[in-house]
Amino acid sequence: MVIARFWDADITTDFVVPMNYSANKAVDRNFYFDLCNMGNSDYTQTFSTTEASTTNFPALDGQSVSYAFLQFPAGAINPPHTHPRSAKLLLVLKGWLNVGFIDTNNKIYKQTLTAGDMFVFPKGLVHYQSNDDPKQPSTAISAFGSANAGTVSVLLNLFTSGIDDNILARVSKIDVANILKLKIGLTPKA
Amino acid sequence: MVIARFWDADITTDFVVPMNYSANKAVDRNFYFDLCNMGNSDYTQTFSTTEASTTNFPALDGQSVSYAFLQFPAGAINPPHTHPRSAKLLLVLKGWLNVGFIDTNNKIYKQTLTAGDMFVFPKGLVHYQSNDDPKQPSTAISAFGSANAGTVSVLLNLFTSGIDDNILARVSKIDVANILKLKIGLTPKA
Amino acid sequence: MVIARFWDADITTDFVVPMNYSANKAVDRNFYFDLCNMGNSDYTQTFSTTEASTTNFPALDGQSVSYAFLQFPAGAINPPHTHPRSAKLLLVLKGWLNVGFIDTNNKIYKQTLTAGDMFVFPKGLVHYQSNDDPKQPSTAISAFGSANAGTVSVLLNLFTSGIDDNILARVSKIDVANILKLKIGLTPKA
Amino acid sequence: MVIARFWDADITTDFVVPMNYSANKAVDRNFYFDLCNMGNSDYTQTFSTTEASTTNFPALDGQSVSYAFLQFPAGAINPPHTHPRSAKLLLVLKGWLNVGFIDTNNKIYKQTLTAGDMFVFPKGLVHYQSNDDPKQPSTAISAFGSANAGTVSVLLNLFTSGIDDNILARVSKIDVANILKLKIGLTPKA
Amino acid sequence: MVIARFWDADITTDFVVPMNYSANKAVDRNFYFDLCNMGNSDYTQTFSTTEASTTNFPALDGQSVSYAFLQFPAGAINPPHTHPRSAKLLLVLKGWLNVGFIDTNNKIYKQTLTAGDMFVFPKGLVHYQSNDDPKQPSTAISAFGSANAGTVSVLLNLFTSGIDDNILARVSKIDVANILKLKIGLTPKA
Amino acid sequence: MVIARFWDADITTDFVVPMNYSANKAVDRNFYFDLCNMGNSDYTQTFSTTEASTTNFPALDGQSVSYAFLQFPAGAINPPHTHPRSAKLLLVLKGWLNVGFIDTNNKIYKQTLTAGDMFVFPKGLVHYQSNDDPKQPSTAISAFGSANAGTVSVLLNLFTSGIDDNILARVSKIDVANILKLKIGLTPKA
Repeated sequence: MVIARFWDADITTDFVVPMNYSANKAVDRNFYFDLCNMGNSDYTQTFSTTEASTTNFPALDGQSVSYAFLQFPAGAINPPHTHPRSAKLLLVLKGWLNVGFIDTNNKIYKQTLTAGDMFVFPKGLVHYQSNDDPKQPSTAISAFGSANAGTVSVLLNLFTSGIDDNILARVSKIDVANILKLKIGLTPKA
Repeated sequence: MVIARFWDADITTDFVVPMNYSANKAVDRNFYFDLCNMGNSDYTQTFSTTEASTTNFPALDGQSVSYAFLQFPAGAINPPHTHPRSAKLLLVLKGWLNVGFIDTNNKIYKQTLTAGDMFVFPKGLVHYQSNDDPKQPSTAISAFGSANAGTVSVLLNLFTSGIDDNILARVSKIDVANILKLKIGLTPKA
Repeated sequence: MVIARFWDADITTDFVVPMNYSANKAVDRNFYFDLCNMGNSDYTQTFSTTEASTTNFPALDGQSVSYAFLQFPAGAINPPHTHPRSAKLLLVLKGWLNVGFIDTNNKIYKQTLTAGDMFVFPKGLVHYQSNDDPKQPSTAISAFGSANAGTVSVLLNLFTSGIDDNILARVSKIDVANILKLKIGLTPKA
Repeated sequence: MVIARFWDADITTDFVVPMNYSANKAVDRNFYFDLCNMGNSDYTQTFSTTEASTTNFPALDGQSVSYAFLQFPAGAINPPHTHPRSAKLLLVLKGWLNVGFIDTNNKIYKQTLTAGDMFVFPKGLVHYQSNDDPKQPSTAISAFGSANAGTVSVLLNLFTSGIDDNILARVSKIDVANILKLKIGLTPKA
Repeated sequence: MVIARFWDADITTDFVVPMNYSANKAVDRNFYFDLCNMGNSDYTQTFSTTEASTTNFPALDGQSVSYAFLQFPAGAINPPHTHPRSAKLLLVLKGWLNVGFIDTNNKIYKQTLTAGDMFVFPKGLVHYQSNDDPKQPSTAISAFGSANAGTVSVLLNLFTSGIDDNILARVSKIDVANILKLKIGLTPKA
Repeated sequence: MVIARFWDADITTDFVVPMNYSANKAVDRNFYFDLCNMGNSDYTQTFSTTEASTTNFPALDGQSVSYAFLQFPAGAINPPHTHPRSAKLLLVLKGWLNVGFIDTNNKIYKQTLTAGDMFVFPKGLVHYQSNDDPKQPSTAISAFGSANAGTVSVLLNLFTSGIDDNILARVSKIDVANILKLKIGLTPKA
């Protein structure tokens, strides 16, 4: 039997004890999570994101808040994506980033952010961040108003999830041969 | 002065009288909306959608429900998109459709629907519908659990909203020359 | 043990896998539901309603939207009722209907609707629809902003649920003999 | 211009200052309301209810709670009704009451309550209270989980709001002559 | 296995049947609770509060409302506290009370209440009630817009929960010796 | 006229344009906020907190998320407080902190956090952080699942808001003379 129901609504207890714990066995350690190594953040080779949400930190269940820690080596991009269940509030910790989001009228909002700056990406809208510095890495923290905001990676959804090639060709006006190239380029290497 | 605040939360009145009306002047006609011409639905030349949401039907404010009427000539597609503020429940009224959505693990869920069938597209996920019939049009109705679900058209967002070409090139692995072709293909004709 | 908790609040997963399924076993078919036979809708003898809600379509759990398909033979009425958990947005598919709702000030709002017209019945208020055409059937679809809106049939509640006859007599000013007639008339035949 | 929007959702301020006040002019008296005269509660001649909701006590806006004070002379009934926007929690202060509610399966739940007893009437369901004592009055307090729960009086809705007589006749199986008698009986005297 | 999840969000059933009951076995008695003995309320020796919330009255689960019954002998105080999950609406039943709450700007709002008066204590703010009558007891009822509002007793939290003495000393500017006296005074006698 | 209503509920627009702007005049800069100077964070002399909430960053209205940046010189404490409208998720950016919260059963949960660690303080509960390092400053970021979580400083509420001295004396068991000392110690210097 699988019971996996998490909701972003006010709980009527102080917190939710995970179901596989014995009754009331909430201990100090439950509320603690080791998100990232601040000191090592320069050394990732590609864009990487480290999340703390209900999927790996059950104490967030019912608390309607979560984090992601973002590391951008020089030239790295967090590709266009949406969070289906929350707005995102990004704070740059180190370096600088070009960021943008697109509203439902297809209008883009862009900004250049440096350390200490924040930017709000409204709920469910497509957005991205790009470290356009040629040499320096950047790091940032994202806060979400949901305990599990989710991520929809729109390019991967479009070209690597299995939508029929001829549907893609018709909606993108790209011919099928080029769609195959796109798929190969976007598919993660084994 | 502009006051444009609509929320999907329980109102504490029966309904919300639009602000530009005189006090309590709710009349029968307020709650009525002429959504579509059922009989003429065969005659659109391209995919078209007709919505009733708080933007054009203010009586929905505070009621957390809305509709869209979808018309698909033979071969027409409702391109991949998300609704940032609601799940969508599609009901096929005439003809048949191939439909699909992609979850946050990039897994696709597909189905062929005929008249009388419905399909649920969960909140905030990318989805599409395609009338793959060579000759017959299809029509469908979509219900949303929000008075204004919004639509994020992901291909238009990616290629026609103004994201920098070199960001697009880097994330899509398409060269800039081909991105320009994509943009031209996707831009609506004047 | 019985676990039957469904809530209309934002879930923190893409969708909810029914509890009696094995883990993560969401398949395409889960999201599909055969609501009605559009072609046969002329042939019901009495008013009938076909619902898709969490009670028979578990994929709606957490998605806050549901449908009902309504069939009215000539002269049939959907008697006064409320939906305790949602507003209702009615769309006429075929024929025409006289509809109305009554607000908490006991004021009635009425309209005549033809195919393609919609009407909003605000949350929790008493409403009805009547096919007053002498010969032609009507069909309509109702959308709800809850995955299980519920139906409170007020005449059946009043006269067939077991409220004491003398309480009914005192509040309705009908004598007990006539209340008994009312009960017999409203009780469904075995 | 009329702005009358009240919502039962978490506010992001401590409280809401009524719009016709000057800025920040919240004073002690704002949060106070004289609901009832506990001592005089024996002396009403008919059932009466005194409410404190956002309609007469604006400090409740955004606080999602309200009260009604109920007075029942001997033999008085609070007729069947629903609250479209909240459950009701009744506490008997003096005397005793027979109470009941009917669920969406038309099943009745009844209880006899004495002073100090409480009963929960779930959200949106038809319910009533009756003081069946031949001589003694009763008083009770109702709490709601909404700042303005609203009241739908189902008998008045059915028979005095203006639903067409022949619709009523067909759904109730009462003939039109008796419906007219019902209407006269239920209509408040001028 | 422990499953203890209660949420203040709209349920999609009429009510929630407690999990240790057999299916659908909701009976009249479920919805009943004996909160207090109205007649005996003069006789408590100290301030006392009797609550009906989801912790002892499971029928409230999903209904977003609860009560507490408060008894104040002459001179008794309900010490400063907050309810983390709801506003509180207090109604004085007998006697009189001095009450107050403090907003997030540290501004106090005070009032003297007599029987029949009510006062709203906004969500999450520190508040107290004091029976300053030299001889007469008071009683009051509190309604909450949550099925389990919770109580945070701030003096007990500060001085008896185990915060390190030197942290307390530094933030309160009280020396450690006097903090120990405070702790002894506030700790309930065995 | 003052209109100051902000709610943490799903909006039905992409974002909320502040009311004193002209229609639709949302520009890139709206969504940007300069929260803090990461580099200068060593140099505060006392504990200090810098917030971005709807009160100073209106773009957060309707997005249900906000931040505070916390700076702790060596030995500084963020005194016991609650956030009435949200849980708090703290992430240590530099240095280390002793932190704790107290649940509604008066049980304390404590932890020592170093840079990269996070801790969840559930909604509405009293909590504190203390930099117990003798020499090094610490910095941290707090995320909230509300656009304006609010802060209730419980010691200031108790001893400097204007609660009557004899009420304080009775509930704290401190004599009035010592309460006066407490007040003087806690009152900010002009």
